[in-house]
Amino acid sequence: MKNFYMQLALNEAWKYQFLTYPNPAVGCVILDKNEKILSISAHQKAGEAHAELNAIKEALKNLKSEFNFPKKADDLYHFILKNHQNLLKNATAFVTLEPCNHQGKTPPCAKLLAELGFKKVFISVKDENKIASGGAEFLQKQGIEVEFELLCKQGEKLLKPFLKWQKGSFKLFKLALSLNGSAYGKIVSSEESRTYAHQIRSVIDMLVVGGETIRKDRPLLDSRLVKAKAPHVCIMTRKSLESFDKNIPLFSVPKRQIFTQIPKEAKFLMFEGGENFLKNFKDEMDCFLIFQNSKLNTQNNVKISLELTPMYKGFLGSDTYGIYEL
Amino acid sequence: MKNFYMQLALNEAWKYQFLTYPNPAVGCVILDKNEKILSISAHQKAGEAHAELNAIKEALKNLKSEFNFPKKADDLYHFILKNHQNLLKNATAFVTLEPCNHQGKTPPCAKLLAELGFKKVFISVKDENKIASGGAEFLQKQGIEVEFELLCKQGEKLLKPFLKWQKGSFKLFKLALSLNGSAYGKIVSSEESRTYAHQIRSVIDMLVVGGETIRKDRPLLDSRLVKAKAPHVCIMTRKSLESFDKNIPLFSVPKRQIFTQIPKEAKFLMFEGGENFLKNFKDEMDCFLIFQNSKLNTQNNVKISLELTPMYKGFLGSDTYGIYEL
Repeated sequence: MKNFYMQLALNEAWKYQFLTYPNPAVGCVILDKNEKILSISAHQKAGEAHAELNAIKEALKNLKSEFNFPKKADDLYHFILKNHQNLLKNATAFVTLEPCNHQGKTPPCAKLLAELGFKKVFISVKDENKIASGGAEFLQKQGIEVEFELLCKQGEKLLKPFLKWQKGSFKLFKLALSLNGSAYGKIVSSEESRTYAHQIRSVIDMLVVGGETIRKDRPLLDSRLVKAKAPHVCIMTRKSLESFDKNIPLFSVPKRQIFTQIPKEAKFLMFEGGENFLKNFKDEMDCFLIFQNSKLNTQNNVKISLELTPMYKGFLGSDTYGIYEL
Repeated sequence: MKNFYMQLALNEAWKYQFLTYPNPAVGCVILDKNEKILSISAHQKAGEAHAELNAIKEALKNLKSEFNFPKKADDLYHFILKNHQNLLKNATAFVTLEPCNHQGKTPPCAKLLAELGFKKVFISVKDENKIASGGAEFLQKQGIEVEFELLCKQGEKLLKPFLKWQKGSFKLFKLALSLNGSAYGKIVSSEESRTYAHQIRSVIDMLVVGGETIRKDRPLLDSRLVKAKAPHVCIMTRKSLESFDKNIPLFSVPKRQIFTQIPKEAKFLMFEGGENFLKNFKDEMDCFLIFQNSKLNTQNNVKISLELTPMYKGFLGSDTYGIYEL
């Protein structure tokens, strides 16, 4: 069953893939001393609770619904240290990435697991980050049993985007298709898919789009479905910025910067477009995010020779989506 | 968590959807007295163990690996009655369909759950079949707590094919697509997808194909990937059977009967074909099984106006597949 529990932690983490930028996506499952599942959680957003802290909170809530947890990660951490009542004594944790051992925006997760008396911690991937690593060693010194490399390959896949943007830049191509491969129509995807896309837009450094799409679709390109920060936009065009109709909605988004060349500081870029844009940029992409609805229609499909390898597939409303690499 | 466990049972059952014909697809999850997951199982094939019996076997194996279980469902049932050592005393079962209460090809599951001392049984859908029903009432009379209608809508979706073929006939259309919606190429789907399709072929009453496909593709249309019974074939053609080249491999499959009209006795029919065949028969289909690989290519897509509602989506190797209704 240990693979099953780690897979639950991995799947939960994938739901927040890209949204944790610049942090890695991490999932955590906690079992009580009798191996009953207490929680399945993930890190959801940079600055908020790590996966372990979220999972511990959910586990405690599951055991005692009257807990009134503070919201801020730092306060939550200290509240739990003070009020855990040994409820998680001899519990087991499955974490997709080695628990951190350093004081970042939140205090070290390894210390929390030790203080609460966890018996065993399963880890999919060792943390190679020099600042945060050492969590497993710390746990072992506190007498906690640690087992490494459980579903290690799957754990490494989950970390790929993080390792890319940490070392330089990460480029994601977003494509929305019908079940028979056409990209036409203004709203192709389910509301759940578009919400995920807007969440990604709210955390990226730059949204990259083609001049052709902008003239034709006159888009807004903001993050309205999650009421969050709209991304800066880089328009790939041979013409000047002045040549665009300034009434196209995207130009009126407050605090938005418009670029015509990708700035070097941009580390997480999402490319959005159709067939031509995909043809031009596919070879420099790190990942592809493809939403697909449940309708066949009579329109032409996107025609391009592209063999993708699935990293993860999931469902959003009536859509399927896949995160692929070349 | 109770929804989570029932969802696990439902997902496991969907893996064997269609393969249990003429029986319904049923899943079962068992937790021990401390709510640790002991097994996640399903009914896999008519004549073999029901979901509950399979799940009980797996749970006992999980607790005592030295059990040497007999293979035949009937023997297995009696072996467990004799040798269970109260290991599942106070266990909980999640079953997607009310446990049967009658002696069919296998003895009643309700009796087995009671004899083993289960504490609680969650049921998604009540069995409306007059012969097999009454299981829940029996359990309650034995002092076992029963909770009905857990994820009832999902449970009903799972049962739809069964209710259809039980009441008359069930028609399934199988389509294999690339990620951009083309149906061309001899091998479109992953080996895992083709294996599932061959498993379905081995249980159906009739495989229905178009004359055009047969002349062009010269297929074998057997169940070689699972080394099982090849289906009888009904060829939908305006021409006579004599007009086909008798060297087309499908005509040489031993024990195969060839029809040109669908016989009334055929209750489970699978239609296989491409765009034209789909256009001709889509309106009389009960379900659509669509496999989709992870490749985009430069070929034309299947063009047809068809809004589908997903009943289940899953993964087979690098393919996605969906089971849809109109």
